[in-house]
This record gives sequence, C-alpha cells and structure tokens, in this order.
Amino acid sequence: MSGNAASSIPDIVIGRLPLYLRALRRLRHVGKQVTSSHEFCKRLDISSAQIRKDLSHFGGFGKQGTGYQIDFLIEKLRDVLKINQEWLVVVIGAGNLGSAISHYRGFQDRGFRIAHLFDVSPDVIGQRIGNFVVRPLGKLADTIREEGIKIAMLAVPAEQAQSVADQVVAAGIEAILNYAPININVPASVQIQYIDPVTHLQRMTYYLDG
Amino acid sequence: MSGNAASSIPDIVIGRLPLYLRALRRLRHVGKQVTSSHEFCKRLDISSAQIRKDLSHFGGFGKQGTGYQIDFLIEKLRDVLKINQEWLVVVIGAGNLGSAISHYRGFQDRGFRIAHLFDVSPDVIGQRIGNFVVRPLGKLADTIREEGIKIAMLAVPAEQAQSVADQVVAAGIEAILNYAPININVPASVQIQYIDPVTHLQRMTYYLDG
Repeated sequence: MSGNAASSIPDIVIGRLPLYLRALRRLRHVGKQVTSSHEFCKRLDISSAQIRKDLSHFGGFGKQGTGYQIDFLIEKLRDVLKINQEWLVVVIGAGNLGSAISHYRGFQDRGFRIAHLFDVSPDVIGQRIGNFVVRPLGKLADTIREEGIKIAMLAVPAEQAQSVADQVVAAGIEAILNYAPININVPASVQIQYIDPVTHLQRMTYYLDG
Repeated sequence: MSGNAASSIPDIVIGRLPLYLRALRRLRHVGKQVTSSHEFCKRLDISSAQIRKDLSHFGGFGKQGTGYQIDFLIEKLRDVLKINQEWLVVVIGAGNLGSAISHYRGFQDRGFRIAHLFDVSPDVIGQRIGNFVVRPLGKLADTIREEGIKIAMLAVPAEQAQSVADQVVAAGIEAILNYAPININVPASVQIQYIDPVTHLQRMTYYLDG
C-alpha cells in the first residue's frame, strides 16, 4: 500500500497497471497489435468495465469499438509507471532467496536491473554469488549515492527485517520490496510492498475442501 | 483473485485475513496477549474501521473497548482459513527459484509443508536439491493421489507456465501459486494466485522521482 501524495489516482488503480502492462506485453509477444477490454479481461480476473475505467484516468488510450493499440498502450503505461528508464535495484540478503532473486531474469526489459547484492553477515560478505560479490550493508549509503539507486529488495529473515529496513532507509533508499514475512515500519515518504507466498496460499485454502 | 462460490464473504476480505493473522502472530511473538484494531492497524496499511468490519464478517471476535484476545483471534483466523491443518504443497520447477522455495523456512507453523519438487527437464530429474530428489512431472498425478496434495507452486519460465499449469490441473491440483510472470488460464474450480516482484516494483516507481 503506497501513499498517493504524488497523485490523485487511487493507489489501487496504480496497482493494477502493472498487470495490464504484463498482459499487453504477452499479447504483443504472440503477435497481436490491437486488443479490446473484453479480450484483455479474459487474461486478468478484472472486469472489462473496470479496465476501461482504470485506463480512462490517463485519457486517450483507446476508443470503445475500435480497440486499444497495444504498442501505444504499452508505451503509455510505461510512461505512467516511469519504467521507460531502467531502475537500479539492490538486494539485501545473500541467502537462498537473495541468491535466486539476483539470478532472476524476469527483471530485464521490465524496467529494473539488479545492481548489487548486500548482506550483513561477515560469513558471506566478499563471496561471489552469480555475477555479484556480496557487499557489506555499511557500504550501501555510499553505493546508492554514487549510482543513484533508490530501490531495495529485502531478502533477510523476519527477525532482521526491521533493523535492515531502518539501515536501508537511513542510507537513502526510497522504495522497498520486502520478502521477509513481517510488516515493517518505514517513514511515509518511503514506498513499501510485500511478497509473502504464505499469505497467497492461505487465501486459497479458504476455498479448498479441508 | 479467487472465485468465491464457497462463501458470501468478499474475496478481498479473505485476502486481508492472512495479513491480520501475520500481524497477530507477530504481536504474540513480542509478548502481547490483547490488541485493539487501532494498535493493529499501525502495523498494516489498513484502517481500524476496515479491520473491525472485516472481522465482523465472522462474528464474535472481540468487542470494541475491550480489545481482541490475540490467541483467540489467531485460532479463529486459522479456522476460517483452514490452516489448522498442514497442507502439503508441491513445487514445480527446480531452477534457482524453485530451489529457494524448497529451502524456504517461512512455511512452517503457517499451515504448509513442501512435500516434493518436480521438474520437466531430464537434466534435473533425479538430482538432489536440499531435502528433495527432483521428480518428473509425469509422476505428479500418482503422487498427489497417494498423498492427498492439492496445492502447487509454479516456478517455471513464462514460456512453460501455461503448459505446466495444464498438466498440474489435469493431475488434480486445486490451487496454484504461480511465480512465472504471465497470467495463466485455469478452470474456474481451480484457485490461482500470482507472485511477480516486477509488478510490485512498477507499482512503486510510479511514486518515485524519475
């Protein structure tokens, strides 16, 4: 849940734009040039009315009846989400998860590049993991100042997450994607998002026969 | 986004219950026995009014003024989400991500246990990864029938995700957590949730100065 001081567009709408972008890129990938909100909504569990309403916040994306030009809409969404540039990201935590994140190829062409892998443990600092030599968290402030990095992904144990988040924020990071299964407190000026697979699993078991 | 044929409680409410449960467990972990929706909402970016309204769907969780008994509320939420039992989960995809998932210790005590790791590639089938020997996907139907498994996590490349999902559904899996950055089509009777870090990152860059 992000603050939306920067905009009058509800955060929940902003949250759906990356899903629209992902679905549009997939349509383009299979050779489509034009789509409709109806075709589009089949790939997303979002109604076509909601999609049209969301996109109308930004104006001029398409006209009902003629469909959406996929390339045009992709570029518009990339502009709105500010991912026409490549954002550098640091990963904090060089365990199994941090290592998997730093190997993950799904960031490329979607606006992000992992720049460095940090850890707090002397046992892993200096070790090579994939393309990265693990840096000490104490060097984060210098690194982000020199390289203009604003985004950190936290892949540390729950017990360390708040302390590491505090250090990351003090170093100047402005957006955190937290994989530790714990809510953390950050200043209102810092964006935070969470990834916790268990919350998704628990949401599904509600619907299963026990 | 799950179908909610099983219930009249909106899916969006169900989706918040795991967040409440996680926050309550954390409060208990630091020694609290009673909490209020006001204390509670500080840890979640959800209003106290929303929390009270959500919990009122299930009745009798607490009274305004006296606070919520944390242990009682935890047990109630575990009942509602059907995680008073341990659900077995299979992971499909034994690459970096699947390997990290199968090593992840955050499932324990939260209702889930990874039972097996599957892959489609002859290169990895039979290899040992952590505590698992990678099984061929063709054995999934037999495995889930014998062991009563209903949940699969997909950690395969985007290009393979739909095909693997089709095989997983054909084998009898009823709930899928998909890590591949692509929307997949499953029958309405199958639950599906997505984890895609890039969609979270893109949601935050909207609020950053480019």
